[in-house]
Amino acid sequence: MTNQKRRKLGRGVAVVGAGMSKFGMFRDRDSKDLFAEAYGELVASVDRGFDPADIDALYLGNFSNDFFMHQAHWGPLISDLIGLTPKPATRTEGACASSALAFREGVFAIASGFYDVVLVGGVEEMSKRTTEEVAEGLALATVPYEGEAGFTFPGVFGALATAYFHKYGATREHLMNVTIKSHNNAPLNPKAQFPLTIRDMMNAKIKSAEKKGIPLPEWQDEKAFLSDPRVNPPVAWPMHLYDCCPISDGASCMLLVGEEIARNFTDDPLHVVGMGQGSGKGLHACDDLTYFEATRYAAKEAYGMSNLGPEDIQFSEVHDCFSIAEIIHIEDLGFFGPGEGYKAVEQGLTRLDGPKPINTSGGLKCKGHPVGATGISQLFEVWTQLRGNAGERQIPNKDLRIGAAHNLGGTGGTCTFTILERR
Amino acid sequence: MTNQKRRKLGRGVAVVGAGMSKFGMFRDRDSKDLFAEAYGELVASVDRGFDPADIDALYLGNFSNDFFMHQAHWGPLISDLIGLTPKPATRTEGACASSALAFREGVFAIASGFYDVVLVGGVEEMSKRTTEEVAEGLALATVPYEGEAGFTFPGVFGALATAYFHKYGATREHLMNVTIKSHNNAPLNPKAQFPLTIRDMMNAKIKSAEKKGIPLPEWQDEKAFLSDPRVNPPVAWPMHLYDCCPISDGASCMLLVGEEIARNFTDDPLHVVGMGQGSGKGLHACDDLTYFEATRYAAKEAYGMSNLGPEDIQFSEVHDCFSIAEIIHIEDLGFFGPGEGYKAVEQGLTRLDGPKPINTSGGLKCKGHPVGATGISQLFEVWTQLRGNAGERQIPNKDLRIGAAHNLGGTGGTCTFTILERR
Repeated sequence: MTNQKRRKLGRGVAVVGAGMSKFGMFRDRDSKDLFAEAYGELVASVDRGFDPADIDALYLGNFSNDFFMHQAHWGPLISDLIGLTPKPATRTEGACASSALAFREGVFAIASGFYDVVLVGGVEEMSKRTTEEVAEGLALATVPYEGEAGFTFPGVFGALATAYFHKYGATREHLMNVTIKSHNNAPLNPKAQFPLTIRDMMNAKIKSAEKKGIPLPEWQDEKAFLSDPRVNPPVAWPMHLYDCCPISDGASCMLLVGEEIARNFTDDPLHVVGMGQGSGKGLHACDDLTYFEATRYAAKEAYGMSNLGPEDIQFSEVHDCFSIAEIIHIEDLGFFGPGEGYKAVEQGLTRLDGPKPINTSGGLKCKGHPVGATGISQLFEVWTQLRGNAGERQIPNKDLRIGAAHNLGGTGGTCTFTILERR
Repeated sequence: MTNQKRRKLGRGVAVVGAGMSKFGMFRDRDSKDLFAEAYGELVASVDRGFDPADIDALYLGNFSNDFFMHQAHWGPLISDLIGLTPKPATRTEGACASSALAFREGVFAIASGFYDVVLVGGVEEMSKRTTEEVAEGLALATVPYEGEAGFTFPGVFGALATAYFHKYGATREHLMNVTIKSHNNAPLNPKAQFPLTIRDMMNAKIKSAEKKGIPLPEWQDEKAFLSDPRVNPPVAWPMHLYDCCPISDGASCMLLVGEEIARNFTDDPLHVVGMGQGSGKGLHACDDLTYFEATRYAAKEAYGMSNLGPEDIQFSEVHDCFSIAEIIHIEDLGFFGPGEGYKAVEQGLTRLDGPKPINTSGGLKCKGHPVGATGISQLFEVWTQLRGNAGERQIPNKDLRIGAAHNLGGTGGTCTFTILERR
């Protein structure tokens, strides 16, 4: 890896407000409706209130409404929606990490001294296209060699899982532990697309079968249920349906300000203490498919800036587009050693009540994954947890101060890692 | 207009290298080939040389290779191309202003103190699609109301021209003055897509007709030629073929560094003294079609930062996607009063040897307009002129110190104005 300098911002930046739409498939709502919902919540979240006229600029992450909705150039459309025109509005794109990039550019714009108050957000509208079209659209984010070789996203992550299994001896059952955990968290998140535990779904299937008089095997536990190809068919082995995040619509946003003026907005700001980003080449150029170089680079940059280590991160949202991705990333971020991630999940260490809660929101798998909105929705969960507003899914640790969010774009082409602190 | 604060950067930023591919329709070359050409020139342009390993991050403007080439997520692809992986690579999109946004984010990233050396660039690959497909792709940048009303880009700018004619008494002949001027500059620019004067083309047509024995009217001057619908048919009245920029492929890039380290790279850096950006709502929301609010906002921000006024800008590249756009923008930027722009062009004030040279490169009209590459290609012209390397098209002013570039995205949705100074 290239020699990496220690990064510092010339001016501190704080988060003083945040909002997120419900995630789901909303065929009667468009990107503007979704962003308006998120922005409305943000406005209400600023403890001391604020004048939207004080917003200096907008950064908006969007992957490809170009493809999904035949509309690009979303910056000014959203600027107009919330009454920001003629102030600047810039779209960032880094595949599924698009809004994590918007967050970062908002931080830079403030840290540079140019602006004081910046709105950052993300949006994606996917459910109006067929599943095949969404797969085609998402493939725009892979590197050409992957697409040309016939890979779609489940195929890519299936290949990673196979390599991981081979190297470390993990099995499909270990992936199920990720799925079961995410589904246990999701019903506690009112914005989640699938607020159901695997056990809920299993019981519903049994009930429905009883009603219809159809014989179904008596699944003894969640893993037996997930092993049944009738309910959890393979997509690209070993990725089965319940290893894959869904197609979603949604929006998210945050209000960033210069640290020295944060108290004008709230007594309880969150500080951006670590920020990192890396890029990757794609599978064809990897000597080892069991880690993401871009994630490791982003983590190193963020840890270097914050002077924190993985042990200091009390909880994290981690990009789990597929169950295997969560396992690999909690290793790349240093939370667990190489080949130890799947064991940590099995041991319950990443549960809501474990020592290192991961994806308390339900993750991309259950919360949903409107790709352009995901990065800031992850930071929204960190905001919600750190400020003690996570309700039933609040992490029980009474001294919650430091949380992080990791966002991946494409097949590792773009990765970000962001650390927030409550002081 | 919203109250606008005076903007300052906490750390100065300088340009120490620049490169640009030839612009044109290159059906045998892809985005990577074009960027490699631009980057190769950049590397050679850094007077004291530099180690590409010192580049901390990449920002890349691209409008919609999503649509044009069925490939998004260009940041990491270009990062890989030039050996930058695993360093961060971020794509910005603001329609035809996409790379001006990349330039701006590069400036912010350095001014924030986070990075020291940032590569910014832009690329677009359009000529592999049919003209109809390109029109469809570009329409992704308009606001939905415009597309739904049947507007394409020539239609939008035709409407602006009609409004301008009505308000100020200008005519199609005045638009021709812009076209003739741009075509006079282009043959002096070896990278231009159409390095031909209107007179050259007129003479070629006469010669060819003579050869074939076809009778053609004896055009007495360029305006007579441009008035002949056989050679210059209407596209969307009063926009005729020669009022419209072409379909192009191309790439451009610049190397930005913290001002205090600029002398490690060159004795002759250019300083980013003014920077502004604005957003607009689209035609349906304009009370007057003869100016762009976003351009005026961007200009005010840039002049405020630089403590300069329009009179201090010695020359400028201005976004002339259509001839009328150049006239409106030289007014919006304050170079000439409202309704005075067309007279200024008629009087030759914007010629290469005039007091306020505009589009010495040939402009989008003749240099070409690969939309994602355009913003930084305009700044490339400013770089080339300020450093006295413009060859035959060098502005004759011996004391050239301050130049600017204005970039427009969509139908005024995004505008930027950037002022560079040689000290």
